[in-house]
Formats: sequence, C-alpha cells, structure tokens
Amino acid sequence: MRIALAQLNYIIGDFDLNTAKIIETIGKCSLQNADLVVFAELSVCGYPPRDFLEFDDFIEKSYSALRIIARQCNGIAAIVGAPSRNPDTKGKNLFNTAWLLADGKVQAMAHKALLPTYDIFDEYRYFEPNRNFSCIQFKDVKIALTICEDIWNLGPDPLYVSNPMNVLATQAPDLMINIAASPFNYDQYKIRNEVLSKNATQYQIPLVYVNQVGAQTELLFDGNSCVIDTHGNTVASCRSFDEDIIFVDFDPLRGGISSKSPLAQQADTKPALIHAALVMGIGDYFAKMGFAKAILGLSGGIDSAVTLALAAEALGKDNVYAVLLPSEFSSTHSIDDAVALAENLGCKYDTIAIKEGYDGILGSLEPYFKDLPFNVAEENIQARIRAVLLMALANKFGYILLNTSNKSEAAVGYGTLYGDMCGGISVLGDVYKTEVYELASFINREKEIIPLNSINKPPSAELRPGQKDSDSLPEYDILDKILYNYIELLKSPSDLIASGFNEATVKRVLRMVNMNEWKRHQTPPILRVSPKAFGQGRRMPIVGRYLS
Amino acid sequence: MRIALAQLNYIIGDFDLNTAKIIETIGKCSLQNADLVVFAELSVCGYPPRDFLEFDDFIEKSYSALRIIARQCNGIAAIVGAPSRNPDTKGKNLFNTAWLLADGKVQAMAHKALLPTYDIFDEYRYFEPNRNFSCIQFKDVKIALTICEDIWNLGPDPLYVSNPMNVLATQAPDLMINIAASPFNYDQYKIRNEVLSKNATQYQIPLVYVNQVGAQTELLFDGNSCVIDTHGNTVASCRSFDEDIIFVDFDPLRGGISSKSPLAQQADTKPALIHAALVMGIGDYFAKMGFAKAILGLSGGIDSAVTLALAAEALGKDNVYAVLLPSEFSSTHSIDDAVALAENLGCKYDTIAIKEGYDGILGSLEPYFKDLPFNVAEENIQARIRAVLLMALANKFGYILLNTSNKSEAAVGYGTLYGDMCGGISVLGDVYKTEVYELASFINREKEIIPLNSINKPPSAELRPGQKDSDSLPEYDILDKILYNYIELLKSPSDLIASGFNEATVKRVLRMVNMNEWKRHQTPPILRVSPKAFGQGRRMPIVGRYLS
Repeated sequence: MRIALAQLNYIIGDFDLNTAKIIETIGKCSLQNADLVVFAELSVCGYPPRDFLEFDDFIEKSYSALRIIARQCNGIAAIVGAPSRNPDTKGKNLFNTAWLLADGKVQAMAHKALLPTYDIFDEYRYFEPNRNFSCIQFKDVKIALTICEDIWNLGPDPLYVSNPMNVLATQAPDLMINIAASPFNYDQYKIRNEVLSKNATQYQIPLVYVNQVGAQTELLFDGNSCVIDTHGNTVASCRSFDEDIIFVDFDPLRGGISSKSPLAQQADTKPALIHAALVMGIGDYFAKMGFAKAILGLSGGIDSAVTLALAAEALGKDNVYAVLLPSEFSSTHSIDDAVALAENLGCKYDTIAIKEGYDGILGSLEPYFKDLPFNVAEENIQARIRAVLLMALANKFGYILLNTSNKSEAAVGYGTLYGDMCGGISVLGDVYKTEVYELASFINREKEIIPLNSINKPPSAELRPGQKDSDSLPEYDILDKILYNYIELLKSPSDLIASGFNEATVKRVLRMVNMNEWKRHQTPPILRVSPKAFGQGRRMPIVGRYLS
Repeated sequence: MRIALAQLNYIIGDFDLNTAKIIETIGKCSLQNADLVVFAELSVCGYPPRDFLEFDDFIEKSYSALRIIARQCNGIAAIVGAPSRNPDTKGKNLFNTAWLLADGKVQAMAHKALLPTYDIFDEYRYFEPNRNFSCIQFKDVKIALTICEDIWNLGPDPLYVSNPMNVLATQAPDLMINIAASPFNYDQYKIRNEVLSKNATQYQIPLVYVNQVGAQTELLFDGNSCVIDTHGNTVASCRSFDEDIIFVDFDPLRGGISSKSPLAQQADTKPALIHAALVMGIGDYFAKMGFAKAILGLSGGIDSAVTLALAAEALGKDNVYAVLLPSEFSSTHSIDDAVALAENLGCKYDTIAIKEGYDGILGSLEPYFKDLPFNVAEENIQARIRAVLLMALANKFGYILLNTSNKSEAAVGYGTLYGDMCGGISVLGDVYKTEVYELASFINREKEIIPLNSINKPPSAELRPGQKDSDSLPEYDILDKILYNYIELLKSPSDLIASGFNEATVKRVLRMVNMNEWKRHQTPPILRVSPKAFGQGRRMPIVGRYLS
C-alpha cells in the first residue's frame, strides 16, 4: 500500500482554500498511485480554529467541506482532520476527529482522547475527550489512528489518566497513523522525534506522522512529518518549514515500510532553527493578512538590525522599508550603522528626525511640565513620536509595522508602551537579547550583513545622553539566565539564589517581570520559538502580587 | 450550628494579605459564636491565579498559608479554598480543593470535579478533575462540600459527563456547601440564583453558597453569597459588590436553616448592575495596582463622559483628571460639554490643543506625504498625538490612563490603535454604545451630571470636518443588535439575514468584527459585564478568514 504524507499550510476558517488545496493534493497523489493520502489535524478548518469552533455555522461549513472532499476520494482514500459533533447530550458538543474518506464517503472516524490544555493549547475548551478506542480498517491494513497528543502520554509523570495507544495496541494494528498540529519551538523537533520513535519501538508498529506546516499568527508549525519504522528509525521525512508531499510503501504482510526518497535535510543549530522559523513566521503573517510590505524603525542597534534582515529574507528586500528616526540623543555611529545595514540589504530607507514632533509635544506640555526635571516621561515621548511617525507612514502607504523588541526587554518592561512596543507582529519578542546576538552571527555566517559595530557596541535605548541598557538592567548574560530560569524553567527566587545568582538582582528582576504584565498584555502577537513565549502560552494575572 | 459566610476581596498571590484577612475574619466570627466560617474558592491564593499555579514555589507558599490558617482554627472551623497536590502520578499535578480546617489542622479535603474551561475559564489547564466523591463530617453534620461549577451540571445538555451532587446525594448529606469564584455579568445573578435554587430543591438539602467579591483586573466578582432552603428560597444573602459576613443557624436534626439578618438589597436593572460593577472594577484596579489617580481624554462625547463619571465615583472626584484635547475639527459645543461635565463632577480639568504636536508630525512627514489627500493617516495622527500627551502627563505625574472606547467601536475596529485605544484599563469596552446611553441616563437619574447635549448629539470622532460615526457605520441601534447576535449569541450571517437584517449590512459588520482581531489583541483589559466580553473570554485567530 502506498501512503502519501501531505504536509500543507492551511488558512484558519478558509474552507474554500483548504478544501481546494486538499483536493488538488489528492489528485496529485492519485497520479503517483497512492492508495491513501494523510493530512494534518483539523486540516479542513486549519489549526487552531479557536472560538470559531463555537459557531454552529463554522461546524456546518466544515461538514460541507468534508462532503466535498469525500466525493473526490475514489480509487484513493484520504485521512483528514475536522471537528465532529458529539452525538451524546452529555459533555462538550464537539470531538476533534480524524476522518477516513474513501469511495466517496466517510468510512471511519477516530476522535482525539488527550486534549492538550496547557501553554498555548486550549483543546478541552472545545472538545470532549474520546473514551472508546477502535482501530480502523482500510483495505487489508488495520490502522491505529490517533491525533497528535494521543501518543504523547508515555513518560513517568503522564499528564493524562488514559493512554489511547495502550488500548489500541491490544487490537493488533498493522500501522499507526498520527495526524498532528504540533507547533515549533527550538527544542520541539528533537523531543518530538524521540516521542515518535518511542511509540514505534514500544508498540512495535510503524508510525506515519503528518504535521501541518506554516505560521498561524504567533504559532509556527515546522512540519517535519515523517515515517518511523519499528526500530525507531526515520524512514522518510518532509522538508521543514515548507509544504511537502512524500510517499512510503507499506507491506502489511511483512510490516515493512520503505521510501525511495532521501531524508530531508534539517537545520540543526538553535540559531539556524530560530532563523528558519522566524522567516516563515514573518512571511506567512503578511501573506495571510493580505499585506506585502513591512516598515520598521531602524536604530542602528542589534534588535532592529536583525529584524530588518529577517524581514528582507521573508518578504524580499524591495518589500521592507527602514526608517531612521534620530533624536538629539542618537549617536552618529548609530545612524551610520543603520544606513550601512540598509545598504547591505539593498532596502529602501529614509531618515526622519523626530525633533519637530517632540518639540511640538513638549511645547504643548510646557505649562504643565514647567521646569520639572527630564525623566521617563520625556524618554517615552521620544519613543512614542517614533511610533506616531511609523504608523502614519504605515497608514498612508499600506505597510505593516514590525515590532523589534526582544524577549529580555519584554520580560522586564524595558520598552515604551505605544512607542517601541508597537507593531503588527513581534519578530524577536521570544528571542532573548543574548540569542539575538547568536541570530546576528548566523545572519552574518557568509558575509557581514549586519555591521559588526551594531553587534559589538554596548546596547542603548539612546533616550537620554550617554544612556546604556546596563544603567537600569543587569548585564544581559546574567539577566537572560535569570529570565530563562524563571520563565522557561519556572524556578523560584530561592532556587535561583541557591544556584548562585545575586539575591538582590534576582528579586529585582523577578519583580520587574511580574510588574510588567500590564505592558505585555498590550503588545503585538509574538512569533513563538521557545517552549515558553509571552502571549497566550503564558497567562498571568495583571493585578497580582506574587513575588513582588 | 452557626455558620458564617465570609465574602471577601482577595489579592491574587498575596498570601500574607489573604491569610491575614482570613484569620481576622475567623477571629471576628468566633466572637459571634460561629462554629464554621466558609470562605470562597481558592481564597488562600485569590482567584484566578492563572499560571502562577505552575510555580511549585507558589503551591508551597499556599500550603504554608494553609498551615498558618489551620493553627487559628480552635473552637471554630473554617472551609477555605486552595490548590492541593495530586498524589497520583497520572493526570495533572494539582486539584482545586476545598479544605476543612479544625482543631488546628486539616480535617478533610474535597476536590473540584467539574473544571470550567470555556469563556474566561481555564481550569483544566491546571487541575485534574476529581473522580471520587465523599461527604465530609463536621460535628454532627454531614456536608456535601463542592466547588463552584460542581453544582452547575443540571441542564438538558450538560457540559460534563459526571455530576458530583448526584453521587454525594446518595450519601444522605444534611447540608450542601459550595465555595465559588463566580464572576459577574448582567445576566449572571439571576441565572446563578436559579441554579442554586434548583440544587436545593432537587436534592432537598439546604445550600450555603460563598462567592468571592471584588475585581481581579477584568473579572468582576459580585459576591451575592447566600443561603437557600429546600423550598428554593433565599434565607440570607450578602451585599453585592462589597465585602460582607453573614451568619445562619443550621439545625441538623430538623434540617432547618435560618438567619436573623434581613436580606441584602440588590441592584436589579441592567444599567444599575453594570454601573455598580464598573465602579467596583475601576476602584479595585487602581487599589490593587497601587495607584490612586486616573487621567483621561474628555472629548465632549458620551463615552468619555460616562467613563469620567464612573471614575469620579470609584476614585473620588479629586483623583480624576480630565484633559480636553481639541483639534481644528473639534466643535465648540464638544468643548463646552466637556467643561460642563468636569464642572458638574468637580474634577480637575485642563485644555491642551493638539495643534503643536500634530503640526510637528505633519511637518516631518511633509517630504513623504507631499500633496497626497488627507485620509485615515492624518485622522490617526490626531488620535495618537492625544495619546502621547495623555501618557506624558500620566508618566510625569503618576496617573493611570483610562481607556474610554465602547464595545461597539472595539467590535468593528472604529478606533485608533495607540491612539484612543490606549489605557491601563478599558472601562466601557464591554458596554455597547446603546448601553452607554442607558448608563448615562442611570448616572443622571437624580440630576443632570452628564450634559444632555453629550447624550443627544449624533456621535462623532471629530477627526475630519463634519464627520459622524454614521458616515462609516450603521446606526448604533442596528449595529449593536447585529453585534449582540454575533458576539453574544454566536449567530451566523444567514441566521441574522433570516431574522430581518439587511444582508449587505450584516456581511459588512461581521467582516469588520473579524478583520479587527489584530487591533483588539493590543487593547487594555476590558472590565467584563456581559456574558461575552472581548479579551480572554473570546479567543479568535488573528490571521483567519472565516466569514471574511
């Protein structure tokens, strides 16, 4: 039996587009003599559909799409993902379902049992967990058909009380098929491969795994669909961060699974992975929002430099517009570095001094500010005037503003709300400052694109004379370690102090993190590359006093 | 047996404060000869603690607080809410638990079984559902002790497959006690009372219900703790929107429950309820953030007028500062109406023309905008200059900016991001424009506080000559009905068209709602007064094409 793995990029709620894409793929695979094409979890509606699932009309549209797709399944079968209505009055109204379509109609359904409800996942919000497990039969193959999380409950501290594969395995299936929507983070590819291998070896059944690919706002799906044999080896794999269709041949009598195509090459260092993910994230955000062109404020610092380089790669150099917005506190070298980068990339850039707007605002406020000393109010006015100028250009000429804040700044609130925290999407908001430097080096791996001066000079917001980030923050190598331990690893202050960090520094940093939840609440969606990004995956009270 | 219902206002994560408050209340109730004091769900840590629950240190602090509280329970018992660790390796690591504390230690625990995971609730994100149900014994009373949602599964289409009270009822309890954290919306008080009555009559057991009170950022808890007898009648009730402690006497032999205090008076019209909720919401947001003073932009329109009146009531007239920010397009009557309101309320106000900043920005942009026609870019610059001025004053003098946008505007994206959509908290973001008028009339119920001219004139953003909201939007009485049907009732376009709305209008409005998710993503938290508010209770894809 020839099985096709269809790793596609869907648009949430665009049933016409997703249906057309699925049908076109079924046609292509039919020409390659495939017997079965496997698509990703909730491929018909796109993942994650979120509260669109609460609209009966949305579910009805999904059923209609399923019927249209089923009619194309003649001489070839397809497994697709789509919600299904729960016939029982008790429990949630929907299941998250894998549908086997063949001979023009629905042949079998398998509902998801383990509903991830943590970090960025909200599945129990919508779906009833499945409690009855049966393998499905397709031709002469008995298939244990599961959905994503269903095969992730193998560890010593399992998150769920049930384990679907343990039940399905008792029915002696020939093959496991898992359809997934498993998002990227820089650790995930490795962890996911281990889980897949562990399943194939533990149950001694080959595993076909199909993930979706592409960005859904902040969630980045790397794909990496693959086939694993009973030794735990990868037999076939899709390209990451791109659509791909691959074929394997399964011999149910001997249990053998094989592919004629070479394995896809994978990026394997953390900066390379983050780079690929962010480029895809920017590209898909613009494409799916229906925009082509990005604008950003280019300061000469490392964050906006890396953001511009990534955007130029994602959108093309002719579609990014860099605006230098110097103030009286901007250093000459910052302007030179910014110009050098824009010229290295070949992007359009302009220089607009913020003085006129800044002076106008200060003039209006003079009767109130009088001779009070310059402080954070004036610093923020500068950042906000920049945002007003950038948004005005964006509104006038149809750009989306890219946010250039990094994760370290977002964590401690080192940024101006409605100023440098503006933008349609945050490119580096899940990348710590020290990781931004790694990304810069990766971007410069073949030649100097980002001026070395932007990389080597001490970071500064340049909002007052001689200002350096280190005036208000610990050095980034210390700060980022504390942040990683607190945000990603959920360590307590006492854990951190015990592991050698300065007590006063730890307390100050964690206090800053918790006190700035209100700022992060109003920031753009952040392209997620770590296991714990700010945004929907980290839900903190805004008003709360823990650790403060 | 004398039972005290302690309806208190907690601060999330502030274990010292919550513990002190609980202990002080136990002391007070002891003086009133209470045998048992009942506190709300997760009272020890405050509800909702959100992802703080993922920190082991947070759980440890909660256990410490419990031990301290338990030591105060001598001669008097307490039921408090706090997370507990799940001893089973399978499943989530925590339960949401009601703890009976007496004789200086933990006497019994009851875990929550039904974990609301919809709208603003995320409980399965953190907790394992309880599957084993036992009544607890306190002195000669057998108590069916449950938590909030546990008694909400009675309807014809139950959300959960299990029903804890059905099991507990078989053990013949004398009394039901339910500890809750049930947030307000303008329908909730009535629905909640029906559910409580239905439980008491269906199981023929009296019910003691203790809710928390106070605002936790956007979530407003009205309290309304009460005692219901087996006829479904309310025997005793706490004041709404305020801390309160009431006492009832329960006779286990006869099953009678009685109170000597009169029932609390409740606001009963929708505007009165919304008014009380918003005043509490503003007050608690400021108090819990540690701020006293609010600033806002006062336009002369109805939204900022109502916001100012509510803020003056919540914070005191001396703690609100109104800034009039006229442009060349502001009408004289708008300025007059704004001044009249500020003077009626006795608030400080100032007038700062936006011309200087606006001209400065346009001057800087002149080489790029050249002679392109005035459009939304210039409109947005005006709104953003206002935000820069307001935030500068807030930063300089220590105010929090109040957002004045209403729900109709938020729905269709009729507002400027980083302009009039700024603020620490949105006061009216869950109040449709037509409901804002109802609130204005309620505020004017005794005398004209909000100038009638602000109420009677056609709404306008005044960002270009002669502009009216109705130039770009349907009339609000039509718009709000469409929005309510789509947002609150989840109706489809075809439902709406079938019920008589104009097809083109419906499609245009729903398209605006879905297209503006990116704007709403960056807005302040919105005080929630309806069953479906924008924010964490409505989670939509930003990039998605359903209905568009």
